Amino acid sequence: MSKKRISITDIAKELNVSITTVSFILNNKAKGKISEEVIKKVQNYVKEVGYKPNQLAQGLRTGKSNIIVFMVEDISDAFFSSISRLMEEKAYENGYKLLFCSTENDAQKTRDLVQLFKDRQVDGYIITPPSDFEEDIKQLLQEGQPVVLFDRYFESIDVSHVIIDNMESTFKSIKHMVEGGYRNIGFVTLDSSQSQMVDRLNGYQKAIDLYDLKSNVLEINFKDLKNKKTGDQVEAFLNKTQDLDALFFATNYLAKSGLRVLKKLQVAIPSQMGVMSFDDSEVFELYSPTISALSQPIESIADKLMEIMLKQLNMPDGKEKIIYAELPGSLVVRESSYKP
Amino acid sequence: MSKKRISITDIAKELNVSITTVSFILNNKAKGKISEEVIKKVQNYVKEVGYKPNQLAQGLRTGKSNIIVFMVEDISDAFFSSISRLMEEKAYENGYKLLFCSTENDAQKTRDLVQLFKDRQVDGYIITPPSDFEEDIKQLLQEGQPVVLFDRYFESIDVSHVIIDNMESTFKSIKHMVEGGYRNIGFVTLDSSQSQMVDRLNGYQKAIDLYDLKSNVLEINFKDLKNKKTGDQVEAFLNKTQDLDALFFATNYLAKSGLRVLKKLQVAIPSQMGVMSFDDSEVFELYSPTISALSQPIESIADKLMEIMLKQLNMPDGKEKIIYAELPGSLVVRESSYKP
Repeated sequence: MSKKRISITDIAKELNVSITTVSFILNNKAKGKISEEVIKKVQNYVKEVGYKPNQLAQGLRTGKSNIIVFMVEDISDAFFSSISRLMEEKAYENGYKLLFCSTENDAQKTRDLVQLFKDRQVDGYIITPPSDFEEDIKQLLQEGQPVVLFDRYFESIDVSHVIIDNMESTFKSIKHMVEGGYRNIGFVTLDSSQSQMVDRLNGYQKAIDLYDLKSNVLEINFKDLKNKKTGDQVEAFLNKTQDLDALFFATNYLAKSGLRVLKKLQVAIPSQMGVMSFDDSEVFELYSPTISALSQPIESIADKLMEIMLKQLNMPDGKEKIIYAELPGSLVVRESSYKP
Repeated sequence: MSKKRISITDIAKELNVSITTVSFILNNKAKGKISEEVIKKVQNYVKEVGYKPNQLAQGLRTGKSNIIVFMVEDISDAFFSSISRLMEEKAYENGYKLLFCSTENDAQKTRDLVQLFKDRQVDGYIITPPSDFEEDIKQLLQEGQPVVLFDRYFESIDVSHVIIDNMESTFKSIKHMVEGGYRNIGFVTLDSSQSQMVDRLNGYQKAIDLYDLKSNVLEINFKDLKNKKTGDQVEAFLNKTQDLDALFFATNYLAKSGLRVLKKLQVAIPSQMGVMSFDDSEVFELYSPTISALSQPIESIADKLMEIMLKQLNMPDGKEKIIYAELPGSLVVRESSYKP
């Protein structure tokens, strides 16, 4: 239903003057070349119809849009939506607009979105890449696009990224639980080859090895996650592994599913079962008992992402500056991780 | 740092052929007009440098981008981010891409964003408008842009919108609390003239009048909200109004602040204080005791928004179809709203 945009051609036709005349007037180059009468006529008409020079066409010439895109895995996840909001403010303060979208960890969908943004000529890309997206990132870099990865990265590509020290963060969480008196700690994670998930598992294994404990890992696959069958899987895991005295969840949504199951089974936290989650949540703060978590520093992540992106945007054409940042997570010790 | 995009002109220059020749070849109109040798040469070069026709320039000609923007108040609010995610899926299924941004209820910021999207020629606008945004919406409509408002609307403008029946929903929530045994119900809301907040207050007043109860309203202003002083305000309200036996919160983030205060003051829910919130949350489901809420039908909202937007997009040029939808909220009765 959108009306056709008024173009310079339309204006010229309507007023019976040449396109060059209109263009000169709109670009303030008409003085001395075109009669005052015609200038007035065009200016009045332009005002009347509310014509605005087409920024999109201007973008084609200048190649600058002042738009940064922020492609997260899932905008409905509080971790991503909180960072998005912070990033939006920071971008705005620096004269950029930030647009979001979710990749849903789907390489084809992400590819389509990247193409759309290329066509719309955005200035920079901040991406939480799905698996199988290495070639696409390489392509973006080859085209000279400013790219910063976030939350995960690819070892095979030299590209700027901001991540959490997932291995060390998980290690210190498990260490905290061992010090809290737990000896048989189950690890609930995703069946995923993404770097952040692999590193969390490695952190768990490191602690298990150090303290000479038994490794108990439940890997939820994506299908069960989508079908909301995570709870069933956790319940089966608890039934199968009767001697567990604690659970560490590798993401906050896994922890929420786990809490529902523990509530249903009336398992007492922290006396019968210690609980901790990677990534904090309002739910953990308000839950009874309160749930300990490894908190990701979302303010620092947002600061660092924007800092690196701005540096890239300000580099001379064709030059690149690869910057990595690995930020520490912090232990938020609440009631759920100390055996009474 | 972005490299200059390769243009048809660059290709023509590099291969020493005319721009028209390149254009003919790229648009598959070269056969019979241009020698096979030249066609091959151009095609090979195009492949080699990875040139893709500029969709942005094509958009200038066709005026169609297949992009819908979804401008919410705050992307970090779970209500908005959940709907965003659903909308994104629905848009994708219908061949559209959805981009998000937050308005932060700031008219100037929203205006800047709308201008950006106009310049980028998006096909449609779904907006939760800030106050003082009536003229901007009128302007969009005058320009023939497909617009659907959401969560709130302006009585003075005939524009498609999807809202919740805020007044009736709040009325039935208060009625439920009265039936649950509470007699002195405080209403905690925002100091806001937006339609959804006004209607929620009206629903409360309707129930207060019907049951001949005393009206106790706390209006939190935006500044206190930003400074996270909501809790202090709620605490002062409780001290000032000693005989309150229940609280209804007009948004879920107000309710979360309220729960923190009640926990701190060790006020027992539901025996000493009944609690309910407009807009459900994971926190309420997992809280002890579980918190009753008026749940907004986010699936239906997303369905309706997309349905109306698609209808608008498929109308012939210059024609409009104004569609309203007022959806009912549903009572989710949990433990916090029945006096034991």
